[in-house]
Amino acid sequence: MKIVILGSGNVAYHLAKVFHDKKIPVVQIFGRNEHDLQEISEKFQIPYSTSALADGDFYLIAVKDDAIADISTKITKNDCVVAHTSGSLPKEVLEGNFRKASFYPLQTFSKSRDLDFADIPFFVEAENDRDYESLRQLASSISENVFESSYEKRKYIHLTAVFACNFVNHLFARAKEISDAQDIPFKYFLPLIRETTHKIELLEPKLAQTGPAVRNDENVLETHEALITNEEHLKIYHLMNESIKKMYEL
Amino acid sequence: MKIVILGSGNVAYHLAKVFHDKKIPVVQIFGRNEHDLQEISEKFQIPYSTSALADGDFYLIAVKDDAIADISTKITKNDCVVAHTSGSLPKEVLEGNFRKASFYPLQTFSKSRDLDFADIPFFVEAENDRDYESLRQLASSISENVFESSYEKRKYIHLTAVFACNFVNHLFARAKEISDAQDIPFKYFLPLIRETTHKIELLEPKLAQTGPAVRNDENVLETHEALITNEEHLKIYHLMNESIKKMYEL
Repeated sequence: MKIVILGSGNVAYHLAKVFHDKKIPVVQIFGRNEHDLQEISEKFQIPYSTSALADGDFYLIAVKDDAIADISTKITKNDCVVAHTSGSLPKEVLEGNFRKASFYPLQTFSKSRDLDFADIPFFVEAENDRDYESLRQLASSISENVFESSYEKRKYIHLTAVFACNFVNHLFARAKEISDAQDIPFKYFLPLIRETTHKIELLEPKLAQTGPAVRNDENVLETHEALITNEEHLKIYHLMNESIKKMYEL
Repeated sequence: MKIVILGSGNVAYHLAKVFHDKKIPVVQIFGRNEHDLQEISEKFQIPYSTSALADGDFYLIAVKDDAIADISTKITKNDCVVAHTSGSLPKEVLEGNFRKASFYPLQTFSKSRDLDFADIPFFVEAENDRDYESLRQLASSISENVFESSYEKRKYIHLTAVFACNFVNHLFARAKEISDAQDIPFKYFLPLIRETTHKIELLEPKLAQTGPAVRNDENVLETHEALITNEEHLKIYHLMNESIKKMYEL
């Protein structure tokens, strides 16, 4: 199977890297950002182009959601499979007469982080069984957790990920604003953050809840509220505590 | 220094354990819950009592915030130091003529989890330099991260911890409700959650933000909103996205 990757961002980078590590040949990496393409090309020995798309059997589009439809129009070949890596879009967003597919890795990607792909769940969807089987095999060569997934299911997977990853990171960012304002180094909180997430590998998050709201400790809640001067922090503080109290029927 | 621990919950358990592991003798563990006291006593070879408090130089109160004042009245000795482990209360909440102190480990404690105390930041406060020095030495024998901290600072440390730990865990619990309702195993999200927190060990959380809100991707935000049927989930979804947009001035 001749694989072409489209895109040069974090997802494209990590896919190129893992294919390289697993000795799965990629015939080309294609995109607009020559600087980033060149970096990926040199690091993982993959030819790149910004203008002439190579002939492939499988085109893997790893670009931002709102650029997927546009870049898919570059693929004029019909007898091939084209997949995107988006969690939130149907495969039908791809524009062309090729066979459409979805190849969704459930992970947050930053170039600076080394990832263990074996752990990353891949959700695969295709138009027919043969395409599904070849994408499943490709995913299985880099991950031990490959699943079939309809768009209906993928939407909910992505929504769950927004709560469990994007919103969690935002709480870290807001927490850091509080500690920064008091000259408290944020690194003090890293062991606590590590433990908070390690815990739920063994314990249901609902059973792992600690803190003043689940203890219904109004004194502490009032003390905290008096400390908060930032309006956004106060809104988050109120809503999360109310939500905790509702979950535990306090 | 003759150490007495008061309490038999998660914090008391882990303190008893680490003192045992570090061969720091504890003369007694005292409390109301005989079952839990007995377990700690047997596991870590510490005598226990529910009625007769032993003579000590340092009484370490590791009970729920609202029980601290009450249990401190059991200590009738004057020439001793009494500390609590609360992040949110001043040392003055302790009732007695002894010297008052605070001995606050910044961590979330569950009995079922083994903890590496070396990493855990300890915040120590005392009435005088000699007491501070002996508590600092005690904390330093179990942790590499011991700091002096006033009540003013400790309140903010605790508030930051509520955002970075308690609220984060609640997001995990809410995320699991979404995936449970769709029969999507929550374990699929564990590699993502692991990576979300590993990332911020190296990257500022503000720079690590991903997801539809920071991309200002209204299509995905609308798709998600249409999926959410639970009112609490919708409130969290709105507020967190608004807060992300404000942080990045979108």
